[in-house]
Amino acid sequence: MRLESGMVFASDTRTNAGMDNVATFSKMHVWERLDDRVIVLLTAGNLAFTQSIISLLNERIRTDRGSKTLSLMSAETMFQAALAVGDAIRSMRDNEKGVAKGNAGLVNGTFILGGQIRGESQRLFHIYREGNFIEATSDTPYFQIGEHKYGKPILDRVATIDMTPGAAAKLLLLSFDSTMRSNLSVGAPIDLLLYRKDSFSVEDRRRLHENDPRYQSIAQSWSRALKEAFCKVDDL
Amino acid sequence: MRLESGMVFASDTRTNAGMDNVATFSKMHVWERLDDRVIVLLTAGNLAFTQSIISLLNERIRTDRGSKTLSLMSAETMFQAALAVGDAIRSMRDNEKGVAKGNAGLVNGTFILGGQIRGESQRLFHIYREGNFIEATSDTPYFQIGEHKYGKPILDRVATIDMTPGAAAKLLLLSFDSTMRSNLSVGAPIDLLLYRKDSFSVEDRRRLHENDPRYQSIAQSWSRALKEAFCKVDDL
Repeated sequence: MRLESGMVFASDTRTNAGMDNVATFSKMHVWERLDDRVIVLLTAGNLAFTQSIISLLNERIRTDRGSKTLSLMSAETMFQAALAVGDAIRSMRDNEKGVAKGNAGLVNGTFILGGQIRGESQRLFHIYREGNFIEATSDTPYFQIGEHKYGKPILDRVATIDMTPGAAAKLLLLSFDSTMRSNLSVGAPIDLLLYRKDSFSVEDRRRLHENDPRYQSIAQSWSRALKEAFCKVDDL
Repeated sequence: MRLESGMVFASDTRTNAGMDNVATFSKMHVWERLDDRVIVLLTAGNLAFTQSIISLLNERIRTDRGSKTLSLMSAETMFQAALAVGDAIRSMRDNEKGVAKGNAGLVNGTFILGGQIRGESQRLFHIYREGNFIEATSDTPYFQIGEHKYGKPILDRVATIDMTPGAAAKLLLLSFDSTMRSNLSVGAPIDLLLYRKDSFSVEDRRRLHENDPRYQSIAQSWSRALKEAFCKVDDL
């Protein structure tokens, strides 16, 4: 979510290759240079593919001195950073063409890129598997990737750009909670990152485990409040 | 939903063949013989395919005297009725084999079958595109078909088998409302049907249009109550 006062990112950590092969991997990647930039990349899709993109982006940062290829650390704007991710996606898709012929799902990944680079305001992009992207505006201040449908109704009703980052973090957590109750492919722990506008440093980054008392209390009081809300509405 | 005191069915009416070809068709079909049976069939999937199934089921009712093929009106139990629907699905899939070769989506349909036949209790089935089916139990008192993800979280939290049919009708309406706010492929009017256990007749059947004051009042007060519920939960 891109708010007036900052940005909030959330991702789950479940990866599965079938019901009997479930593992925990972070899908949140952060590049930070104090007082200059904070860039966050969230990933969804095939883990082999999305990990390769992250590795390629990191390699390009190591070799970007004198190179013509844009890297996340040499980009002068978030638009250039989004182009850099798009370019990495296309390179990796070209590289994996043989794999893709057998199974297109193997080179499938979508991304949310957000952050701020000194000299411009905070920006948020949804990058597609083809490497092209759209940018969030105040009409649509959030993006979702992956298993997004279960958690969308609460976002559509509650999300506004004038929320505090704390309220937005709660909203994203409840959106994930809705999904996790209905779908096994999404699972805790949840990674959360809060960025305050013009700070050029990560304000808060935490991992909420399922048995975290803070998370449990929020999930339970939401469940209770939701049932009360339901009872308040008149029957047909 | 199959409740202790009755059953409630809901379906939207939107059919689309692309964004620019949207039409209204009921997806709720009812067979009733007073004091003997109420059978409701909800459909999702390709309209040409699901309409053919309904036509075939009706043809088999007209010709079932002396025929060996089970029909919805000659079935002695809801299990036999589910078998009759499964059989119609398989016949139509066989018939459309040529079509299916080009595009499997064209012979795609899923069904919810529910009701009560004198001599046994009310029963609810989810019938798959292959014609096989599962039956609701008190552990899982409801089924969804079609675009089901957006509307599932509220069902998972609120649905219980001891709800009144009126409360359950409100719940199904709010579940549809969640979906309609987030996805254009589902749209009003909503068809609702209430059946009271052991009545062997439809108690209430109505169509709620988007501008129906009753529907609007419920949707708005739910939206308000949801936002209040969100504010009640402590921030992270």
